[in-house]
Amino acid sequence: DFELALLEVKPAFGASTDLFERCMLNGMISYGEKYEKLVSTMESLIEQVRVSEKTPMLTCLLEGGAGSGKTALAAALAIKSQFPFTKLLTSDGFVGASEAAKCQALAKLFDDAYKSPVSLIVLDDIERLLEYVAIGPRFSNVVLQALLVLLKRQPPPGRKLLVIGTTSLPLVFEDMGLNAAFNVSLHVPELSPSETSAVLAELGAFDAVDLPRACQALQALTGDRVPIKRLFMLLEMARHGKDDLGDSMDVGDGRRVVALDRWVACLRDLAQ
Amino acid sequence: DFELALLEVKPAFGASTDLFERCMLNGMISYGEKYEKLVSTMESLIEQVRVSEKTPMLTCLLEGGAGSGKTALAAALAIKSQFPFTKLLTSDGFVGASEAAKCQALAKLFDDAYKSPVSLIVLDDIERLLEYVAIGPRFSNVVLQALLVLLKRQPPPGRKLLVIGTTSLPLVFEDMGLNAAFNVSLHVPELSPSETSAVLAELGAFDAVDLPRACQALQALTGDRVPIKRLFMLLEMARHGKDDLGDSMDVGDGRRVVALDRWVACLRDLAQ
Amino acid sequence: DFELALLEVKPAFGASTDLFERCMLNGMISYGEKYEKLVSTMESLIEQVRVSEKTPMLTCLLEGGAGSGKTALAAALAIKSQFPFTKLLTSDGFVGASEAAKCQALAKLFDDAYKSPVSLIVLDDIERLLEYVAIGPRFSNVVLQALLVLLKRQPPPGRKLLVIGTTSLPLVFEDMGLNAAFNVSLHVPELSPSETSAVLAELGAFDAVDLPRACQALQALTGDRVPIKRLFMLLEMARHGKDDLGDSMDVGDGRRVVALDRWVACLRDLAQ
Amino acid sequence: DFELALLEVKPAFGASTDLFERCMLNGMISYGEKYEKLVSTMESLIEQVRVSEKTPMLTCLLEGGAGSGKTALAAALAIKSQFPFTKLLTSDGFVGASEAAKCQALAKLFDDAYKSPVSLIVLDDIERLLEYVAIGPRFSNVVLQALLVLLKRQPPPGRKLLVIGTTSLPLVFEDMGLNAAFNVSLHVPELSPSETSAVLAELGAFDAVDLPRACQALQALTGDRVPIKRLFMLLEMARHGKDDLGDSMDVGDGRRVVALDRWVACLRDLAQ
Amino acid sequence: DFELALLEVKPAFGASTDLFERCMLNGMISYGEKYEKLVSTMESLIEQVRVSEKTPMLTCLLEGGAGSGKTALAAALAIKSQFPFTKLLTSDGFVGASEAAKCQALAKLFDDAYKSPVSLIVLDDIERLLEYVAIGPRFSNVVLQALLVLLKRQPPPGRKLLVIGTTSLPLVFEDMGLNAAFNVSLHVPELSPSETSAVLAELGAFDAVDLPRACQALQALTGDRVPIKRLFMLLEMARHGKDDLGDSMDVGDGRRVVALDRWVACLRDLAQ
Amino acid sequence: DFELALLEVKPAFGASTDLFERCMLNGMISYGEKYEKLVSTMESLIEQVRVSEKTPMLTCLLEGGAGSGKTALAAALAIKSQFPFTKLLTSDGFVGASEAAKCQALAKLFDDAYKSPVSLIVLDDIERLLEYVAIGPRFSNVVLQALLVLLKRQPPPGRKLLVIGTTSLPLVFEDMGLNAAFNVSLHVPELSPSETSAVLAELGAFDAVDLPRACQALQALTGDRVPIKRLFMLLEMARHGKDDLGDSMDVGDGRRVVALDRWVACLRDLAQ
Ligand SMILES: Nc1ncnc2c1ncn2[C@@H]1O[C@H](COP(=O)(O)OP(=O)(O)OP(=O)(O)O)[C@@H](O)[C@H]1O
Ligand SMILES: Nc1ncnc2c1ncn2[C@@H]1O[C@H](COP(=O)(O)OP(=O)(O)OP(=O)(O)O)[C@@H](O)[C@H]1O
Ligand SMILES: Nc1ncnc2c1ncn2[C@@H]1O[C@H](COP(=O)(O)OP(=O)(O)OP(=O)(O)O)[C@@H](O)[C@H]1O
Ligand SMILES: Nc1ncnc2c1ncn2[C@@H]1O[C@H](COP(=O)(O)OP(=O)(O)OP(=O)(O)O)[C@@H](O)[C@H]1O
Ligand SMILES: Nc1ncnc2c1ncn2[C@@H]1O[C@H](COP(=O)(O)OP(=O)(O)OP(=O)(O)O)[C@@H](O)[C@H]1O
Ligand SMILES: Nc1ncnc2c1ncn2[C@@H]1O[C@H](COP(=O)(O)OP(=O)(O)OP(=O)(O)O)[C@@H](O)[C@H]1O
Ligand SMILES: [Mg+2]
Ligand SMILES: [Mg+2]
Ligand SMILES: [Mg+2]
Ligand SMILES: [Mg+2]
Ligand SMILES: [Mg+2]
Ligand SMILES: [Mg+2]
Repeated sequence: DFELALLEVKPAFGASTDLFERCMLNGMISYGEKYEKLVSTMESLIEQVRVSEKTPMLTCLLEGGAGSGKTALAAALAIKSQFPFTKLLTSDGFVGASEAAKCQALAKLFDDAYKSPVSLIVLDDIERLLEYVAIGPRFSNVVLQALLVLLKRQPPPGRKLLVIGTTSLPLVFEDMGLNAAFNVSLHVPELSPSETSAVLAELGAFDAVDLPRACQALQALTGDRVPIKRLFMLLEMARHGKDDLGDSMDVGDGRRVVALDRWVACLRDLAQ
Repeated sequence: DFELALLEVKPAFGASTDLFERCMLNGMISYGEKYEKLVSTMESLIEQVRVSEKTPMLTCLLEGGAGSGKTALAAALAIKSQFPFTKLLTSDGFVGASEAAKCQALAKLFDDAYKSPVSLIVLDDIERLLEYVAIGPRFSNVVLQALLVLLKRQPPPGRKLLVIGTTSLPLVFEDMGLNAAFNVSLHVPELSPSETSAVLAELGAFDAVDLPRACQALQALTGDRVPIKRLFMLLEMARHGKDDLGDSMDVGDGRRVVALDRWVACLRDLAQ
Repeated sequence: DFELALLEVKPAFGASTDLFERCMLNGMISYGEKYEKLVSTMESLIEQVRVSEKTPMLTCLLEGGAGSGKTALAAALAIKSQFPFTKLLTSDGFVGASEAAKCQALAKLFDDAYKSPVSLIVLDDIERLLEYVAIGPRFSNVVLQALLVLLKRQPPPGRKLLVIGTTSLPLVFEDMGLNAAFNVSLHVPELSPSETSAVLAELGAFDAVDLPRACQALQALTGDRVPIKRLFMLLEMARHGKDDLGDSMDVGDGRRVVALDRWVACLRDLAQ
Repeated sequence: DFELALLEVKPAFGASTDLFERCMLNGMISYGEKYEKLVSTMESLIEQVRVSEKTPMLTCLLEGGAGSGKTALAAALAIKSQFPFTKLLTSDGFVGASEAAKCQALAKLFDDAYKSPVSLIVLDDIERLLEYVAIGPRFSNVVLQALLVLLKRQPPPGRKLLVIGTTSLPLVFEDMGLNAAFNVSLHVPELSPSETSAVLAELGAFDAVDLPRACQALQALTGDRVPIKRLFMLLEMARHGKDDLGDSMDVGDGRRVVALDRWVACLRDLAQ
Repeated sequence: DFELALLEVKPAFGASTDLFERCMLNGMISYGEKYEKLVSTMESLIEQVRVSEKTPMLTCLLEGGAGSGKTALAAALAIKSQFPFTKLLTSDGFVGASEAAKCQALAKLFDDAYKSPVSLIVLDDIERLLEYVAIGPRFSNVVLQALLVLLKRQPPPGRKLLVIGTTSLPLVFEDMGLNAAFNVSLHVPELSPSETSAVLAELGAFDAVDLPRACQALQALTGDRVPIKRLFMLLEMARHGKDDLGDSMDVGDGRRVVALDRWVACLRDLAQ
Repeated sequence: DFELALLEVKPAFGASTDLFERCMLNGMISYGEKYEKLVSTMESLIEQVRVSEKTPMLTCLLEGGAGSGKTALAAALAIKSQFPFTKLLTSDGFVGASEAAKCQALAKLFDDAYKSPVSLIVLDDIERLLEYVAIGPRFSNVVLQALLVLLKRQPPPGRKLLVIGTTSLPLVFEDMGLNAAFNVSLHVPELSPSETSAVLAELGAFDAVDLPRACQALQALTGDRVPIKRLFMLLEMARHGKDDLGDSMDVGDGRRVVALDRWVACLRDLAQ
């Protein structure tokens, strides 16, 4: 049932922001200046939609590498907006769905949004909605054309709409003319070494003395830049699994400090 | 319902020119000589259709970069023509529609036009009607062929028709043989620095002393040429959003003068 | 049966040659030796079909640039032939039609022609019947194959048929094997400077003293060769439209002499 | 009705060899040694099928340029074979037919042939049955596969079958694996200058003194080699048409001697 | 009816091995060491399937040039195996059949085989089952995938299965991943000069003194290697046909000795 | 519901692990350090899924050459996990199935898994599920997109899921974005010479003195690296078949020691 994919969220002071919250299982951590600026620009757009008469519709694309935190950021802003209508469209409910079914769901989503005076729509992982694959490349032109029209179509008089899209394929979107269909395009960065260190410190994932070497070990596996989602996955791997190398200590509040040896061994395993 | 896409406009002294007017949310500003010449050439064509017996049908393509003002110009001329039948065809009502449905709508549009002695049709954003995407490239050949036939088909004896098309892909249209299907092709330019300055002055967007530096800041972001639509969007962004950098002043008539600092900061944000 | 065929196109001294005549809204003007030779070769073919027993079917392709006058020439010859059955097949009635529908119409056209002892069919703008577009390229192979068969199929014993096709894509037709499917292929030329001058003189479009400079101005816009159809369109543009540059004078018989200034200004406008 | 395409021919001493005879409207003329050898090799194959127990099925491809006389040759041999079952399959009845319909007709043709002890099938212009076009290239793989199977399938015990195919695209057939599916492949040549002269002499088309110069004029238009079908077409053109250059004389038996001047003028017309 | 394609063969001591025997119209002749080794390796596989518990399924591909004797060899081994279930799958019954019908027939064939404790399946001319054509290339991926799954699927516990496939396109099969789907791949060679001589001697096709020159003449036409099937075809051609060059003598047992002159003339005819 | 899930796969100490066990017809042999590390990393993932709250879903890709033992390894781990729900998805049941049917089966599989608190799914030979073929390449984008969504979709609150996929085409998966859809990707190696020797020793396949030369002979055929599945196949071939070269001795426990001569002869046969 495609209705499933249209996860309606009641007003923010209401109860059902759960769906957006499930996009932030690891919370939102400020990793520095770049993050703050991203959030502030986005908040300006939210404000503009709420207030301006000349721009009843604004569209913003969050683009960045896999796992850089796009979905979580969009969800956090949707909750913060406190718009009466906020919805998340993912592909989760579209497994095996036809192009026609997707277009219908997209059209319905926008029509529903038009019913509220101010609305916010998150189109998550647009390449998945487009069934994009780099070999060929192939994708659903039917869905793409639907998006290109919907992203440029004016809401009915008196209605306002902010659309946030996410993608990890900005170059492909360029070729598709999708980038140009968004008013604003913002980059969600992967973590630099110092940002990584800030996140790990904030999490208390390591004993303070181990932190520098934990960061170094990570860089050896992943290179200079780490997607924040991958960082959380690696920490969780190190925290669990078989205990032969050095147990991680439970620090009571559900967080467990990871022993440096275990961290290094775990990274080495994955590097093969 | 595809009927929605066929936005009938009553005689110009009538009431329902709203749809064409919604294409000009920011009004029409004369930015200089080029604009005047464009308008005058178009008016000649309108006159020719009204009068000549030998050319019962004329077709004109407005081509120019994204946001250069093609749709607004076509709409303005449609209103000015005061033809008894003027219609705007966009893709807004065709989300997920089949090729067949589009062809049928196109054929019906022309047949409706033939019923009035003198008619004007605007085919807006033809590449969207064609479901064009540069990857491949792909497009609906069925719709293209329908257009190629309709644009060359003589109206019934005694009927006259002016067709105005808009596109931002003149080179692609060349390959499709669509350019050749139009009698006349006119370029809608993006704004040069002096034209930009003229528009900003006319709008009173900045204090007169700030104008030169406001223009310079803009050029730094966008390069020499600015699409007029983008210019309006940027002004609106600078006028709203969070207030931490310098408030814009409301000047009473709904226009608000933008502080230079705020303008510069806003442009810098988008440049990332 | 034969009566049906008579209902469709009456003998040439009858009434319903209108459709062919609408292809010659601007009449037929002899622009010189090349035109005379074209007409005479075509008349030989008409004669051969009428008389020869060994060649019951002849097929002739008129190929030439866009607007060179192919359709008008085919129509003029169809009328002149005075064959009991003459028909024009264009794409005008096929907007959005399926390939199957086109094949059926083609097959029916030939079957109808076989019912008359001597018939002439004009297949106008064959590339449009084929839904050809240069990108790809794409076209209807189903329609192409139908044509290839029909153009080589012998009429039933005692029946004779002349097929005249028109196209502006002779090179593409070569690749399609369509050229080879025609017995004869004739080139319809664009006008040379002296031919242009002859046409303008014949039309009395300019004062005699202005004629040389009118021709020069035209060449500056279009180059050495002008399609005759475009020449008529430009004249009509210069004759109408807004009057700010020099009014054209109505010379009574419906033709209006064009002032040189106005002609030059009009050409300059289109050159942008 | 696809039955039309399957033109059944009664035993040779019967009456309905008409269809094969219509393939030879201009008769069969021996143009020299090459022709004699072609015929003799083909007759050997007919004999082998009639007699041998080890090769109940033989398949032979006649390949040669357009108009080289492939169809006429195949038809002549079919008549000569006096097999109880001889059939001609062309595309004439398949205009707009589906691939499935063609396969069905092919399968039925072979099944019908299996019902007679000794049969001969002519598959004329196989590229047309395959709906081949060089652009792409495109063709019906469904029909091709059907042919590949049918051409290798053994007839039921006690049945014998000779299949003659014709094509002007031997290189394409190579790529399709169709050449290899035939046991024998024979080339049908275009006429050399001396062969052309022999045919013209045999026909009495020119006064004997004009013959050498008539041949020279032809070579100037067509080059060294002339397809025999084209030769007949040119003769017929010269014999008819308008009379301004030199009348051809009717020599009583239906053949008319062509005046040299007229021949030269006619060739020049087509050369443009 | 696709059932036709599934030619069931009763136990070898039974009666209906006819279908396999029709694949060997010219018998099986041992042309030397290579042939013996091929047969012995194949017999080992038959033995392994019959006996081993660890390899309940074995798959073997016979690949070699057109006419090299693949089908005959597979058929001979199927008969020799005396397995209770042996079946031959060819494309003979699939003319114009859909991909789905083929997959269904394939699946049914394997399911039928699973019902017998030990089975042997011959998949003849797999490229034809796949509707392969080199232009493109095109083929039925649906049938290919069905084969790839069926060739790796374990039979139910207690059942054993040997699959023999034949193809003349081993390189294409490599690209398709079909080679890798077979446990063993064996090459069926064309005849070397000495092997050819051995076959001709065994057949008594020529007088002993003529044999060396008969072989030389053959090599001149075909090059060093002759497919055995072609050798039989050429012999049969030489034995029949018109008698002008030297009659072949019937030697009583149905074999006829071929006169050397006739052999040479026949080869020359085909070489053209 | 939960009972349904229990019906499908009983707890590991139950009875129906047969399907996984049939993937290990030759048992699991530790061939050295690499194998041990592979198993231990996989066991960590199983542990993490069982315990961690932050990563309710983990996905792991086992990639390696054909026959390297991927399926057997996945099966062994599924049994070892003792999860209440473990299922194997292969293409065995999908011969000729539509893309839609596959997507539905995939979606159902995940939905079934969500019904158990902790589940493990093996997606075996994913390229076969995708109907991948290198020519083109072609594959089912519909199934691919379904996989890409399902592999990233969070299980419902409180449910946990480990997905193990296998493939021999890691580079293709990279292009498809499938690698990135798995949290972890592990390489299953082919056997090095010393690992091969270890396996053969463990199996007692040869007399100890023959082992080094048996290994050398193998390397001559296969090169440095041997897929473990192929090693077992070769051993079985050498153990059976015709006896002319040296009988293998049955050692009582069902294993038979292979004579070196026989081994060498068997390898030579396959090398041709
Ligand atoms: N400042 C932050 N920004 C974004 N995510 C954060 C931040 N701090 C913590 N996170 C956590 O990091 C994870 C980011 O994952 P998310 O799914 O948003 O990435 P993504 O870029 O959408 O990945 P994908 O490319 O797979 O769609 C979430 O679990 C989120 O709770
Ligand atoms: N002289 C002018 N010409 C055109 N537009 C103008 C002019 N003056 C002001 N405008 C305003 O500029 C905007 C032009 O946007 P418009 O949608 O017409 O551009 P466009 O070229 O059609 O864009 P797109 O490429 O996205 O279709 C309108 O809001 C219009 O009111
Ligand atoms: N000698 C002439 N030959 C052809 N057309 C002529 C001639 N004299 C005048 N005309 C006029 O020129 C115009 C020729 O246009 P026509 O539609 O036949 O060109 P076309 O080559 O078919 O164009 P297109 O390529 O668009 O199909 C007609 O209006 C016709 O009346
Ligand atoms: N010796 C001959 N061989 C073949 N045709 C001959 C011969 N003598 C005369 N003809 C005549 O020449 C013509 C040959 O035309 P035919 O249609 O057989 O050529 P084709 O190669 O099949 O042409 P296409 O390539 O168009 O199919 C026929 O009219 C036939 O009567
Ligand atoms: N030793 C032999 N091996 C194979 N065929 C032989 C042998 N001796 C005689 N023959 C005969 O040679 C012919 C081989 O033809 P066959 O159809 O098996 O070849 P093929 O390789 O399957 O051909 P194709 O590539 O057309 O499928 C048969 O008629 C068979 O009776
Ligand atoms: N350590 C081991 N790891 C894997 N397989 C082993 C091991 N020891 C023995 N085997 C046996 O080796 C065989 C491995 O074959 P398996 O089908 O798992 O390979 P695969 O990589 O999945 O092959 P394919 O690429 O064909 O899918 C099985 O029969 C298994 O019992
Ligand atoms: Mg995301
Ligand atoms: Mg527009
Ligand atoms: Mg025309
Ligand atoms: Mg022919
Ligand atoms: Mg074979
Ligand atoms: Mg496997």
